[in-house]
Amino acid sequence: MQNISTIAAICTGHGGAIAVLRVSGKDALNITSKIFKPLNCNLNLESNAKANHLYNGFIVDDNGNEIDRVVISVYLAPHSYTGENIIEISCHASSYIQKEILSLLIKKGAEMAKPGEFTRRAFQNHKMDLSQAEAVADLIASKSKAEHDIAVNQMRGGITQEIKRLRNLLLKFTSLMELELDFSEEDVEFADRSQLKSILKETENYLDRLVNSFKHGNAIKNGIPVAICGEPNAGKSTLLNALLNDERAIVSDIPGTTRDTLEDFLNIDGVTYRLIDTAGIRLTDDQIEKLGIDRAKNAISKAEIVIIVLNPQKDLLKQFSEIIPNDFSTEKIIAVVNKSDICNNIDVSTLPKGINIIKISAKLKTNLEELFSMISKLGNINYSQDEVILTNIRHYEIFSRALESINRAETALESGLSGEFVSQDIRDALRNFAEITGDEITTDEVLGNIFKNFCIGK
Amino acid sequence: MQNISTIAAICTGHGGAIAVLRVSGKDALNITSKIFKPLNCNLNLESNAKANHLYNGFIVDDNGNEIDRVVISVYLAPHSYTGENIIEISCHASSYIQKEILSLLIKKGAEMAKPGEFTRRAFQNHKMDLSQAEAVADLIASKSKAEHDIAVNQMRGGITQEIKRLRNLLLKFTSLMELELDFSEEDVEFADRSQLKSILKETENYLDRLVNSFKHGNAIKNGIPVAICGEPNAGKSTLLNALLNDERAIVSDIPGTTRDTLEDFLNIDGVTYRLIDTAGIRLTDDQIEKLGIDRAKNAISKAEIVIIVLNPQKDLLKQFSEIIPNDFSTEKIIAVVNKSDICNNIDVSTLPKGINIIKISAKLKTNLEELFSMISKLGNINYSQDEVILTNIRHYEIFSRALESINRAETALESGLSGEFVSQDIRDALRNFAEITGDEITTDEVLGNIFKNFCIGK
Repeated sequence: MQNISTIAAICTGHGGAIAVLRVSGKDALNITSKIFKPLNCNLNLESNAKANHLYNGFIVDDNGNEIDRVVISVYLAPHSYTGENIIEISCHASSYIQKEILSLLIKKGAEMAKPGEFTRRAFQNHKMDLSQAEAVADLIASKSKAEHDIAVNQMRGGITQEIKRLRNLLLKFTSLMELELDFSEEDVEFADRSQLKSILKETENYLDRLVNSFKHGNAIKNGIPVAICGEPNAGKSTLLNALLNDERAIVSDIPGTTRDTLEDFLNIDGVTYRLIDTAGIRLTDDQIEKLGIDRAKNAISKAEIVIIVLNPQKDLLKQFSEIIPNDFSTEKIIAVVNKSDICNNIDVSTLPKGINIIKISAKLKTNLEELFSMISKLGNINYSQDEVILTNIRHYEIFSRALESINRAETALESGLSGEFVSQDIRDALRNFAEITGDEITTDEVLGNIFKNFCIGK
Repeated sequence: MQNISTIAAICTGHGGAIAVLRVSGKDALNITSKIFKPLNCNLNLESNAKANHLYNGFIVDDNGNEIDRVVISVYLAPHSYTGENIIEISCHASSYIQKEILSLLIKKGAEMAKPGEFTRRAFQNHKMDLSQAEAVADLIASKSKAEHDIAVNQMRGGITQEIKRLRNLLLKFTSLMELELDFSEEDVEFADRSQLKSILKETENYLDRLVNSFKHGNAIKNGIPVAICGEPNAGKSTLLNALLNDERAIVSDIPGTTRDTLEDFLNIDGVTYRLIDTAGIRLTDDQIEKLGIDRAKNAISKAEIVIIVLNPQKDLLKQFSEIIPNDFSTEKIIAVVNKSDICNNIDVSTLPKGINIIKISAKLKTNLEELFSMISKLGNINYSQDEVILTNIRHYEIFSRALESINRAETALESGLSGEFVSQDIRDALRNFAEITGDEITTDEVLGNIFKNFCIGK
């Protein structure tokens, strides 16, 4: 797994005042020394640069022209992010300067880093396990406190510590059971079956918790889906604007999600909600378009929370029934009776029991705080900062498979099958565990798939 | 001018894998120490942190929750960019993490840095003169080699070195002349008039060169304007695409400039050309819209180079005369006779003498290289890397005023006016010089105007 190439990339984003390029690999110092003219002329990057030091100087091209005055950071293997020698070049954030320095590095022997390649090297050099490496991408992408906390927890090794503990216990038992095979004629049992049973149960419970956490994790990562429906004149747009412009609501800057795309992001107390506007869906007395109904039903059925905006000047129940399916779980519904500023005595008793009802004026922004609390309560994810929550679909699939194997092992054990079969199922689960920690993954293909979703420069 | 506040800002752009926050001021270490938990527990930022060192650790909030694992860089006053203590925090580029760290810094006593405030402090702490500080903004904004070279030259003090030399010489003469006033009854001349005359001439020449360089400088900074005109069916769009997609042509990523805005940027040999598409302008036989003509004429008159795309299947001169004004300077025009792939024997002799003519096929991209050379030759800015070129309108205006004062001083000297008058004019010029170097600027208003155009974080 030894990387012989030295890689380089621009690690910071577009714009800004300063930019950072990173060079990692055994030739990082040598390559940088060819384009770096230190202010201190006694400095020789290759022979006397000290680890964790900053050096001032100029990046110069082959003709000695100064490209930029920079500061470089020196990290020496193995005490660096990748475990290799690393030079970070901090320059002015001109697009010209960044491209020029990168091309000089390439010219002097560095290779363009592929997406996630720095983190992949960190994994390969045992600076972190695979699930920690994957959490780095999640951490960088995190936009809310909840996403951030889950990623930090995963980076800290939240999943792998427990997985490794269970793995060591299970490994002991499978080894003992496999040893029994060698003495099969003597009919001995080295592995204590009741102890094994309790460990399998413990593993099952843990995996079950993990697999079930994925629904929450996915909601945290992609935002809890909230469908907003109601007739066009009910004040839905005004409500949406009021929600999104409120000081507590931070509209996300995810590219491509503008108000036009019918999806907005709302952040309440560190949790992201994905507001799905069903504005495009027409539902009138006269003309009910098939396509419209399907789309509305689809959005509503996928939502964790449904906000229906009602016009108090019309029949409330009629508006409600036209949009919300009969069998829809009432506790997920918030009926927002709008226009409280012009309608005083609104009778909401006709609405179905069990749904959440709130009277507001979207126009005057009255009672919005209460609506926020209501959303927050329904979207309550109940995670503690230290809890392990799956957000990664790869992990979800692997743990689901591991859970099946453990269940099979338990059944085999219950039905008194020979240790051979039980051991086989446990081995399957252990192979799954190794795919999480990366202990047995060596193929370029698997690693390539994992790291291709990283950004370049990490 | 002592700054008592400590300022903080995010210095890197949007996106990317890593981000950098900068804290500058006398409390930079104290403030950072309140949120930084070093890996090495013997480190105390305030008492034993070493200059130019990197330290690993965690940013933690008041509850001890880890926000991110970071690396901090320590710079101690006066050996830093601003001349103050500086801490740079290198973190993961999550928008959540960046905002969180910034708010923690503010909470612990830092102030949000205003645009350009770090560079303003560098100026105020005599780390650079004012024209060098202004060049920092130009350097960060530079997108082409030419822009970059000019900014680097200015940062190196290209303008101020010469200005200071001339200023010292002139100062000597004004002082001597002012001394003569004290001995006015004795009719002595301490200042050698012929020496003074030669120095004034030298200053005049230098200022003249600077003021004249502004036209070039402005073209380099904003791109040399190239109007592209021609009838809609002449193949203008195909040519534009061919020009912009050619490997030598790098379309800039300046925000807001998409193909829709009728302006594109083309980079040939390090010089930026601003292509102004007059596509929206309709000029037909039947209907000539007044507005269209005005806009086309306007674009053409402001252009340094005019490319007119001609359809060889129609009367060339007629197409030419309908668009190009009679009195337009011929050497600035490139007549691109398109469709050379389908029209073999094109007679261009009807076109006006003196214009540049080239036959191409925009569709097959033949002869594009030659067209590039032709554009490059017409746009030839003739700058050497060490030449001082004005790009800043503030500098242009100040040097224009200084030139007027020097001219007045010369006239006064020629006409034998008393030293008092000559000295007065020279003093005016010297005051202008001081506005360039910042030697006499103390008002917040002037500095505020200069630095407000910087980005935050620099």
